[in-house]
Amino acid sequence: MQVALNEARIAMDKGEIPIGAIIVCHDKIIAKAHNQTETLNDATAHAEMLAITGAMATLGSKYLKDCTLYVTVEPCLMCAGAIHWAQIPKIVYGTKDRKKGYSSYSTKIFSQKTKVISGILEKESTEILSSFFKNNLR
Amino acid sequence: MQVALNEARIAMDKGEIPIGAIIVCHDKIIAKAHNQTETLNDATAHAEMLAITGAMATLGSKYLKDCTLYVTVEPCLMCAGAIHWAQIPKIVYGTKDRKKGYSSYSTKIFSQKTKVISGILEKESTEILSSFFKNNLR
Repeated sequence: MQVALNEARIAMDKGEIPIGAIIVCHDKIIAKAHNQTETLNDATAHAEMLAITGAMATLGSKYLKDCTLYVTVEPCLMCAGAIHWAQIPKIVYGTKDRKKGYSSYSTKIFSQKTKVISGILEKESTEILSSFFKNNLR
Repeated sequence: MQVALNEARIAMDKGEIPIGAIIVCHDKIIAKAHNQTETLNDATAHAEMLAITGAMATLGSKYLKDCTLYVTVEPCLMCAGAIHWAQIPKIVYGTKDRKKGYSSYSTKIFSQKTKVISGILEKESTEILSSFFKNNLR
């Protein structure tokens, strides 16, 4: 999760909403990404989406069945849908997104076997977001 | 919707699940796409996702506020999330997806202003899918 948090810091430095994600497969990081919606001019370029497509390209597989996704913030509905299609069995996230997080919409997106762990580096993941929004009032 | 259906036929010819999508802006088609999960080895390469990113690239904008998305099948949760982020105000789809369609999970994904029209070329959109699954038992 520290690596994901570093990705969030890279996003912050670019003026992007600071969210970072990595994908780990057999104890190896196979994809790292941060939110790039501004840089790529693409509202779907969330950290998780970029990490997932990157990991698929790295493995040459459209499924990520042996992988874990670490992301600093609870995934949105779009990213949760992508996690579902990629068949990622384990998701670890930092801070909850009470407004746009997938669990505010539906709790039946993932299969019952999918493991979801939250609250890892929660304080740091929240602080970087708070700091960003404090400096970029919208 | 006929153009979206043509895209579905292109997918069919490639051995992809036959779903097609287009995005129209001010009466002009600005993006056409079909499902390419097999070709791109990417479980997130749905017709809608490819059409949305294509339209954003065409317009040079991360929002598609003046656009309509036409898609042969009801969008899944991931694609519905992408439609939400792209702020597409109007969605027209052919046939309902009772298993993976977004409305099976949540009905509050889009804003109240978003217009959703279903059942356009429904028969044709359903038939091409049925034909595919008949020939590709999974």
